[in-house]
Amino acid sequence: MPYFDAASSAPLHPVARQALLASLDEGWADPARLYREGRRASLLLDAAREAAAEAVGCRPDELVFTSSGTRAVHSAVSGALSGRRRVGRHLALSAVEHSSVLHAAAALEADGGSFTEVPVGRSGAVDPSVYGQALRADTALACLQSANHEVGTEQPVAETAEICAAAGVPLLVDAAQSLGWGPVPGRWSLLAASAHKWGGPAGVGLLAVRKGVRFAPRGPADERESGRAAGFENIPAIVAAAASLRAVRAEAAAEAVRLRALVDRIRTAVGSLVPDVEVVGDPERRLPHLVTFSCLYVDGETLLHELDRAGFSVSSGSSCTSSTLTPSHVLKAMGVLTEGNIRVSLPAGTTEEEVDGFLGVLPGVVAEVRQRLGAPAAAAPSPTPQASLVVDALGRRCPIPVIELAKVIGEVPVGGTVTVLSDDEAARLDIPAWCAMREQEYVGEEAADHGSAYVVRRLL
Amino acid sequence: MPYFDAASSAPLHPVARQALLASLDEGWADPARLYREGRRASLLLDAAREAAAEAVGCRPDELVFTSSGTRAVHSAVSGALSGRRRVGRHLALSAVEHSSVLHAAAALEADGGSFTEVPVGRSGAVDPSVYGQALRADTALACLQSANHEVGTEQPVAETAEICAAAGVPLLVDAAQSLGWGPVPGRWSLLAASAHKWGGPAGVGLLAVRKGVRFAPRGPADERESGRAAGFENIPAIVAAAASLRAVRAEAAAEAVRLRALVDRIRTAVGSLVPDVEVVGDPERRLPHLVTFSCLYVDGETLLHELDRAGFSVSSGSSCTSSTLTPSHVLKAMGVLTEGNIRVSLPAGTTEEEVDGFLGVLPGVVAEVRQRLGAPAAAAPSPTPQASLVVDALGRRCPIPVIELAKVIGEVPVGGTVTVLSDDEAARLDIPAWCAMREQEYVGEEAADHGSAYVVRRLL
Repeated sequence: MPYFDAASSAPLHPVARQALLASLDEGWADPARLYREGRRASLLLDAAREAAAEAVGCRPDELVFTSSGTRAVHSAVSGALSGRRRVGRHLALSAVEHSSVLHAAAALEADGGSFTEVPVGRSGAVDPSVYGQALRADTALACLQSANHEVGTEQPVAETAEICAAAGVPLLVDAAQSLGWGPVPGRWSLLAASAHKWGGPAGVGLLAVRKGVRFAPRGPADERESGRAAGFENIPAIVAAAASLRAVRAEAAAEAVRLRALVDRIRTAVGSLVPDVEVVGDPERRLPHLVTFSCLYVDGETLLHELDRAGFSVSSGSSCTSSTLTPSHVLKAMGVLTEGNIRVSLPAGTTEEEVDGFLGVLPGVVAEVRQRLGAPAAAAPSPTPQASLVVDALGRRCPIPVIELAKVIGEVPVGGTVTVLSDDEAARLDIPAWCAMREQEYVGEEAADHGSAYVVRRLL
Repeated sequence: MPYFDAASSAPLHPVARQALLASLDEGWADPARLYREGRRASLLLDAAREAAAEAVGCRPDELVFTSSGTRAVHSAVSGALSGRRRVGRHLALSAVEHSSVLHAAAALEADGGSFTEVPVGRSGAVDPSVYGQALRADTALACLQSANHEVGTEQPVAETAEICAAAGVPLLVDAAQSLGWGPVPGRWSLLAASAHKWGGPAGVGLLAVRKGVRFAPRGPADERESGRAAGFENIPAIVAAAASLRAVRAEAAAEAVRLRALVDRIRTAVGSLVPDVEVVGDPERRLPHLVTFSCLYVDGETLLHELDRAGFSVSSGSSCTSSTLTPSHVLKAMGVLTEGNIRVSLPAGTTEEEVDGFLGVLPGVVAEVRQRLGAPAAAAPSPTPQASLVVDALGRRCPIPVIELAKVIGEVPVGGTVTVLSDDEAARLDIPAWCAMREQEYVGEEAADHGSAYVVRRLL
């Protein structure tokens, strides 16, 4: 039963399991104590810190273990902001950061600070020079992920780090998705990562703060982990995290080549096997194991469910799969289609057969969902064309507004317009995306009594 | 090699180990995902929450898992303060709380709030009516541990909870030391605990917040654990924590009787085998497995070291064993001797032979340390007594100031005084404690050029 959602959480690596088991008997005592059980725990912790620091590319005394990647990000942001509060309370970040970074920015704003979201291009990457424009005299911290968690696009971290360094602003890199594949290049100042993303256990994050970076931990004092991560250290999990990071890195070069080829196969095949698909993210500068695509006229939640029934576990950034019924902020920032969105992220060891199995099942599943939703195969020309039409899709959720638009576009003459009334958040993204895919003109959005009116002009 | 420091961290319970191993393969996926791996993880998490809630005595939807007991305390304090910020920003707590509570109070004060420390009696317990006096109109939260982590004294939680309820103030109980022994009685509002204290794995804390208690989580938003504990859930550890809590509880009644008898044996034997010892903490209302005593004229760090060499792992609240060179705030609040302090906390399964082994070794170790430090066996009367003497112990650390006092007390006549000059933090506590043990009069402390002058009058 193939699991294709490694970007959410990777299955435990065998080395992580072995290291965890081996250290359960040695690593349970308080490493701050001077008796033998404490000294043994302390030795394990020191060795894990050295191994992890080597993999990160920092000094052991620059690295602490947190209880999760989210905690590492939250502590990195609050500590760096606090350490540079005399400079100001402004934060720069890309528009496609992980929610932990976005939430830290929102918390700053709620507390009287401010932030600037740097836009991304259609591939999902920031432009370093555009990033540089977001840096201000009062910018205390800049944040940029090493690679995007939803579409796999690598960010220009090294170039952005240079621009930040020139402006005297420390750069925090969220390396959660990439650290298992290799160290983050360039002169970053802070780095956060999460062990369960590379096959380590849950409960371990990494926070690296380069010497010389001003950093003042927030919250109640705690002596553990240099005062940067409160709470009793989870040493068996830390040992397992460090050991598995080393093991994953040893396999990374070969596995990257193998998975990159499998992902290339998916990228190519999806476009030819499934009509009306948009593969998103940079085709070259990307994580080796991750590909994301969106299918017109498909409901993401049903698609996930049907793929799960067929034995494939994937995730989606479509609005219907979110608890808030809003589409992924990443797809939104990229300006790409959000309906029928599927992210495939292959864990290490994924076989060609598993990928082919997925490609074998996908077209049928998409076709079936489309049929069930009444998606148009091709817009039938109407016998009596009207110059303009209004489609009322109020109260209907993604992908219905786009389906209704596609059904009637053939009923207006070339040059005529279709206006879609919708109160669904995804329509604002997906109607323009549909126009781009169909080479129709997206005229714009107008206020309406309920929701919005989206105007589309037929070009062909 | 007996380990007698269960109050710091207990060795992993066999059931915790089994549950951890069994759930490594089922519990690594994201429980928020809808595919099969996510559903399995979610089922494990739900079952663990139900089991833990039953042991705590709350509803499952009142309980979240945090990454440590410290995090549970920090989140409980900040969330309850935030939820009741319209009432005020005052916190009440006992003077003998765990450092995680004290640090949360200090953080509140640094942020413009205030707190009141409720004093304890010589046994280490608060008086509920004295506690009630600390509650003010602007008190947002009251904190009281279920039992003290250094001396084992149980606190009158149920009575204090009634007083708090009458005042409309929620009570947070830090149950870290007692939850393995049984549920916390009474009408508490919030509860925090830590799995590695009962033989569960590190990396898991519990935070219970009763329905109806105003609670507003602080820090960046996160959807996991009802928004009360940010970061990816560590499900295998959570499963192990819940399973071991249930297992430990099943053994608790019988094990409490057995360990209570072993602790009684230590309490009695220490007093008769070792001269000049003060056993501290309530002899009856106490944790079953913990006993603390202090030895006059002994250096705690050397004592720990020698006991470790002899094969026994214990801890100490003496100033010399602290990184800040200050004695334990618990012993200080109780007004008891802090030098030569030893805490023995027996893990489940400790045998009579191990305890007897400890009692066999202890007198010799203490005698040897005393001899090395030149401790007085008995004060020899001086041939030419002087009405008053000044002892200069400036720059000398605990237990030297007390040893120097004891050496010369016989050189002044009954009614005469010895003044000890000392800049050691422990002297302020231990000179009065010595006077109480020796039935001499502690006159008081005066300012001196360097440090303080402690005046003692010879009574016999």
